Amino acid sequence: MPNPILVTFIAGPAGQWRVDRQSNISGDGLPVAQRLSMFESSAPPGVGEEIWRLRGTTSNLRYTNRQEVASLAAIQEGLGRPRSTRAALIPIRKNEAWWNLPQNERRAILEEQSRHIAIGLDYLPAVARRLHHCRDLGEPFDFLTWFEYAPEEAERFEDLVRALRVTAEWTYVDREIDIRLSRDP
Amino acid sequence: MPNPILVTFIAGPAGQWRVDRQSNISGDGLPVAQRLSMFESSAPPGVGEEIWRLRGTTSNLRYTNRQEVASLAAIQEGLGRPRSTRAALIPIRKNEAWWNLPQNERRAILEEQSRHIAIGLDYLPAVARRLHHCRDLGEPFDFLTWFEYAPEEAERFEDLVRALRVTAEWTYVDREIDIRLSRDP
Repeated sequence: MPNPILVTFIAGPAGQWRVDRQSNISGDGLPVAQRLSMFESSAPPGVGEEIWRLRGTTSNLRYTNRQEVASLAAIQEGLGRPRSTRAALIPIRKNEAWWNLPQNERRAILEEQSRHIAIGLDYLPAVARRLHHCRDLGEPFDFLTWFEYAPEEAERFEDLVRALRVTAEWTYVDREIDIRLSRDP
Repeated sequence: MPNPILVTFIAGPAGQWRVDRQSNISGDGLPVAQRLSMFESSAPPGVGEEIWRLRGTTSNLRYTNRQEVASLAAIQEGLGRPRSTRAALIPIRKNEAWWNLPQNERRAILEEQSRHIAIGLDYLPAVARRLHHCRDLGEPFDFLTWFEYAPEEAERFEDLVRALRVTAEWTYVDREIDIRLSRDP
């Protein structure tokens, strides 16, 4: 695990990713842009008329145990695979009740009750994923999760998102936006 | 636990706290200033000729279980007590081996092996403490711990610092600076 990478997502008229669909799942929405860019930088270049930007950092793993880390590392693939022309950016915020829980109770809800890590493993390596933390950066969301997959995996990706949204963990989510994207091969 | 507070420490010729002593415990040092200020702000006012600034956020608890949270809450006191005219700022960085450990193994080293939380409890409420996280902010340290205590507790504070520095957890610390401060009553 390298040092944390600060990543900036910018929505506007230009960028590598087309916005195909944007759904406000809970809480306040975000303006819909035509395009989205992801920069591994804290000072990204301008992209013309910017509509919004969100920042997060890759940080360290917060809940996984050694066996889970090993299982993930053995099977997951990185971002940027040529066939992964679909992507999703899902910003979420969790409520105060979540953040007031002790560490071990958050872990128990996340995995022993909700099987968040195990569910994610079921969709590897088809769906590549990178989690960005942003609560400590003073951002409006707590997490920005970025997913990449091939067009033929789109239905399976819907299954993954549905499976997570019915968990006990998700009862703590008070703001969620689901942005689906595509790019040219 | 309120939302994370971004805190900025500025060393320079002015500020509420006098620098009485600064010790480079491990790794690269920091220039020594005459004074230090702590601002609960991301955009603090200027303090004249600034020597360095360090930023951190109060974040959420990362390791404590419910019983430990309750024990801490029952006995700890806040910052700013009139009799607490001594303070310490101890910036530390942990090495890659620490950050590569799974969550549960970091917890086991921190508490089951090193009794970090229990040792801290032994010095409450005499020593008030606030932990600031900064690894995800791209700062040169991972943590900035701030302590406040009365002059008559100075010897006990030395015991606390000594007790922590001989733990298994501290073998992962690769940079540490110990800045001791005082202010007028």
